[in-house]
Amino acid sequence: MSEHSILFLPHNKKITVPDGETLIRAAMEAGVHVNASCGGEGLCGKCRVIIEDGAVEGGVSEKLSKADQEKGYRLACRSIVRGNLTVRIPVESEVDASVLNLKSTPRCTARIVEPNLDELKEQGLFIPPVEKKYLELPEPNVHDNLPDVTRLVSFLKLNHDEHRLVVRLPVIREIPDVLRQGNFKVTATLARPVHSGRKSHIIHVEPGDTTDRNYAIAVDIGTTTVYAQLIDLKTGKVLAQHGDFNAQISYGEDVISRIVYAEKPGGLEKLQEVVVGTINKVIGKNIRKAGIGRNEVSSIALAGNTTMTQLLLKINPRYIRRAPYIPASTLYPPIGAKSLGIDLGDHVTALIYPAISSYVGGDIVAGIMGSGMYRTNEITLFMDIGTNAEIVIGNKDWLACAACSAGPAFEGGGIQFGMRAAKGAIEDFSIDPATLEPMNITIGNVRPKGLCGSGLIIMVATLFETGVIDSQGKFNRELKTPRIRQTEGIWEYVLAWKEETQIDRDLVLTEIDIENLIRAKGAIYSGAQTLLEEVGMGIQDIERIILAGGFGSYVDLEKAMVIGLLPEVAPDKVTFIGNSSLLGAKMSALTNRIRQDVVEVTRKMTNFELSETPSYMDHYIAALFLPHTNITQFPKLKERLEARKKLRK
Amino acid sequence: MSEHSILFLPHNKKITVPDGETLIRAAMEAGVHVNASCGGEGLCGKCRVIIEDGAVEGGVSEKLSKADQEKGYRLACRSIVRGNLTVRIPVESEVDASVLNLKSTPRCTARIVEPNLDELKEQGLFIPPVEKKYLELPEPNVHDNLPDVTRLVSFLKLNHDEHRLVVRLPVIREIPDVLRQGNFKVTATLARPVHSGRKSHIIHVEPGDTTDRNYAIAVDIGTTTVYAQLIDLKTGKVLAQHGDFNAQISYGEDVISRIVYAEKPGGLEKLQEVVVGTINKVIGKNIRKAGIGRNEVSSIALAGNTTMTQLLLKINPRYIRRAPYIPASTLYPPIGAKSLGIDLGDHVTALIYPAISSYVGGDIVAGIMGSGMYRTNEITLFMDIGTNAEIVIGNKDWLACAACSAGPAFEGGGIQFGMRAAKGAIEDFSIDPATLEPMNITIGNVRPKGLCGSGLIIMVATLFETGVIDSQGKFNRELKTPRIRQTEGIWEYVLAWKEETQIDRDLVLTEIDIENLIRAKGAIYSGAQTLLEEVGMGIQDIERIILAGGFGSYVDLEKAMVIGLLPEVAPDKVTFIGNSSLLGAKMSALTNRIRQDVVEVTRKMTNFELSETPSYMDHYIAALFLPHTNITQFPKLKERLEARKKLRK
Repeated sequence: MSEHSILFLPHNKKITVPDGETLIRAAMEAGVHVNASCGGEGLCGKCRVIIEDGAVEGGVSEKLSKADQEKGYRLACRSIVRGNLTVRIPVESEVDASVLNLKSTPRCTARIVEPNLDELKEQGLFIPPVEKKYLELPEPNVHDNLPDVTRLVSFLKLNHDEHRLVVRLPVIREIPDVLRQGNFKVTATLARPVHSGRKSHIIHVEPGDTTDRNYAIAVDIGTTTVYAQLIDLKTGKVLAQHGDFNAQISYGEDVISRIVYAEKPGGLEKLQEVVVGTINKVIGKNIRKAGIGRNEVSSIALAGNTTMTQLLLKINPRYIRRAPYIPASTLYPPIGAKSLGIDLGDHVTALIYPAISSYVGGDIVAGIMGSGMYRTNEITLFMDIGTNAEIVIGNKDWLACAACSAGPAFEGGGIQFGMRAAKGAIEDFSIDPATLEPMNITIGNVRPKGLCGSGLIIMVATLFETGVIDSQGKFNRELKTPRIRQTEGIWEYVLAWKEETQIDRDLVLTEIDIENLIRAKGAIYSGAQTLLEEVGMGIQDIERIILAGGFGSYVDLEKAMVIGLLPEVAPDKVTFIGNSSLLGAKMSALTNRIRQDVVEVTRKMTNFELSETPSYMDHYIAALFLPHTNITQFPKLKERLEARKKLRK
Repeated sequence: MSEHSILFLPHNKKITVPDGETLIRAAMEAGVHVNASCGGEGLCGKCRVIIEDGAVEGGVSEKLSKADQEKGYRLACRSIVRGNLTVRIPVESEVDASVLNLKSTPRCTARIVEPNLDELKEQGLFIPPVEKKYLELPEPNVHDNLPDVTRLVSFLKLNHDEHRLVVRLPVIREIPDVLRQGNFKVTATLARPVHSGRKSHIIHVEPGDTTDRNYAIAVDIGTTTVYAQLIDLKTGKVLAQHGDFNAQISYGEDVISRIVYAEKPGGLEKLQEVVVGTINKVIGKNIRKAGIGRNEVSSIALAGNTTMTQLLLKINPRYIRRAPYIPASTLYPPIGAKSLGIDLGDHVTALIYPAISSYVGGDIVAGIMGSGMYRTNEITLFMDIGTNAEIVIGNKDWLACAACSAGPAFEGGGIQFGMRAAKGAIEDFSIDPATLEPMNITIGNVRPKGLCGSGLIIMVATLFETGVIDSQGKFNRELKTPRIRQTEGIWEYVLAWKEETQIDRDLVLTEIDIENLIRAKGAIYSGAQTLLEEVGMGIQDIERIILAGGFGSYVDLEKAMVIGLLPEVAPDKVTFIGNSSLLGAKMSALTNRIRQDVVEVTRKMTNFELSETPSYMDHYIAALFLPHTNITQFPKLKERLEARKKLRK
């Protein structure tokens, strides 16, 4: 894909964007404010810019007069970048010239990091859990009448240097006929021991040479969705991926209502059955997408939160939701996939990620394993942000974790116009510090109908940095603009006027919304602080941040640091690993090294119940400010705020 | 039980017998001949003896005149020994006086040997495969909210020094509720690893303290019968034993017809189902006899021949009966008893004895393990004699085995009046060297209706030693007695006249019968010789003999050496271990040491297919003589024969 460079004047900011980007998003990316209320639908006509050099596709509109069009005016939200440009932001929406000297915080989301097989191989971490070996056996005769299994085992030793082999009964049952079907030319599938020196299991024998076809499935069992990947075990490549809603949703939206259902007679069995149904559905899709045979899948690894895991394994989760919140187990032994109802060959063993506690589950452990944070020296903060946020801090020497009840703010819950990240949600925002006019960018470039979690963070951070709200999240009552007002006693900022929205109402951000966000981010930040303090460290010791989960890929890192959700580290030290549960499951499917290490990780991990950790409440109260009571924890922000203060004076 | 001593005159032989023995059996035991045709029913009146001192119970008969009775005459077969006696054998049935100087061969069956637990413990061979541990756990609270399984495992480590524990999924499912049912006071059942250093499995958790109730089942799956024992794992004691016919009999009498049936559609499943039915029946009887709970059984070990084993495990045995006779496997992994249909707890693992080849099966391996022959220095010959006789030779350094097709002679098959060892079968025999009159003793002391395998060996040996038949098994045509005659061209000896039998015909032993026995014993002896020769040894290197199977307990050792079935060793070097399959299964249930060793034993064992071993046919031809072409292999017999020859001259 080609790229184009754009110079924004008078800011004199240069940025490179991919072909096809809208000009308004390019401006946002460059940290250049352009008034825009309608989210990018071309309705408000406020995002007028002048193309001084080069040409854009589109951008003309009835909102622009013929004369203006001839002068080079275009609507930024409707202009598609197709070449290098010089773009001037007109005076009417340009910020106070002095603001140009401010250090802007560039849009910056976390680097996406996926481990690759070659790297693992180089590091000696690649121990294939399942391998196929082809054998041409001599046919038996009266002078050589070894038992069939003994023959197979002997020649695996002789030809492939395979020692210490165990054969399971279902395979023994097949071997006599398979050997003869294949004229004693067969492929044996070996499942490797987790610990070297232990025995390998012959789990499958097929006629002929099938060594080039060996696949695994990785599954993330989420409360809402189930995702699966099909992995080629020879190359480590993901051949297909598919997700679907967890059919358990019909029996309750969240884990608590699922547990309640599981306690009813037959409820556990029902929930197990339907989640396996979903798993089978996504496996089926993957198999069809990749065009492989179902029986060519040799292994499956699954990860999910503690409740999802217990439901899958038909372990009643009743004690998870009752104080003192006890899960059944940490580690689960490998188990025949078929015995769980998973529609794969008899020979396929299901690996289940271990849980740490009732609210730090296998999905998080999978993230630890998949991200490799347990192998590094750097003190790393791992976060999966959602209603229930999980935090893990540590490195190769120690690990501590906790679950924080952050509330639903990050998913748009408890926010007056909050919504999930869907079409029409404001996902990016800027404000003109002089006029206090907004620049809204919505998902899908349509008129706004709400704001999503990542947008909320950007708004609150921006309003705070521009001094529109103070460190307690209260609007500066002295600012003169119709956008800041009081409705039924609640102060609010009008993001978009009624006619610019899809909802036929003014779209606002209230102080209550801001307060909710502050509580949510405070719960998480203070959780991390508490863990660190318990191990004798402080927030400044964090060297690296790993974000997991859907939310993590969208969050603007600098803004998240401005509101005090994330501690202040260099953005290149923040990585995003996407669906950590799926990643960890994939890694387990690819290398036994993960399975070796995971036992050690669960042993090493110290779980904190924050509600039972006395210092947590103090940290939480201190975190109910923007960014924090103690601003020295955010030195770069402090510097910027002081610079602004100076400018204003 | 009290014992009495009897002095036989004029032989001057003293013997001690238990109270209640018949006098005729006492005489037989002492090697004193008393004429007796009717098997001990008091019908022929020939077994007249004079009680010179002491008194017997019974023994009077219409066959004895009042005068004779007053002189002390009694019928030996009807006289019950109730005190010390001096008994004179009257002149009319006394042998030529010179014979008295002959060395007689006392009746002598093999010593019955059963290993005991204390001995195993002393030898450090006792490693209990399943143990119970009682635990009083602290109840969880908000400050101590370990997962339930982690709590259990931690306190097993803390209180019982149990490390490296694995918990299976079905147990994980139970633990949360069981812990709470037992108020966190529970008993955990641990299955020990076969090899130390491996992991123990927590296979069961029960509320309360059940450590004193821990049992195992041992099963012998015979083609005809299934026997099971219930063993107390704390004491090693057998609490109950029960046997029943293998219900597979309805689908074929022998292994070949079972295999044929198994090849039919649904046949394998049917045979598996019915043998498990029989196993469940005998387990049920054992449990009721011992008065224990079914769920208190923690393990089960099973042994059977190769076909029985494959049928139990639902492995099609089709290649067992087809050249080159290939069984599916040697070793079988432990498997959940329930998955085979065995009606025991979910937690019970079934241990299956490994097979060596299609015709040397798990029953024989069980014998090797149960007898401990694989641990000794002595070169030992292990024999299970039947239609298919299995031979194992070796010691702790090497082991060789073979199956011999002996034919059914030892079970009475192919013998004109042969029968199984049941009421009316002649089981013991002697002959008056002068008159050639027989002394028949039948099972049940009733009129004879046939002869059983052990009786046949005694007859042929006795007839040979007394010169009635020659080393080729042919009758001495010159002997003058109506008992030796030719019928339809076949020479025969009349054991009992028509009116003395239950069968209304003369009961005879023919030269064809003798030939069949010689073939049978020749097959076995030459099998042993072949194995020895293949390892560079000879028959004289055998230091010890172990007999297994029903036949072994009845066979007269000296007579078996006279006919050349057994090599000549001191009788105290011959031991009988009964049902070797059951013994081995019991030993496996008692100590993991057996399970450790059995893998080594199967690896060490060299299996010979005698039909494919060129030297076998030569050895076989040489063995078709009494005792053998090469009599120097039987030095004691040679000496006795030479002494007799001298006497006759």
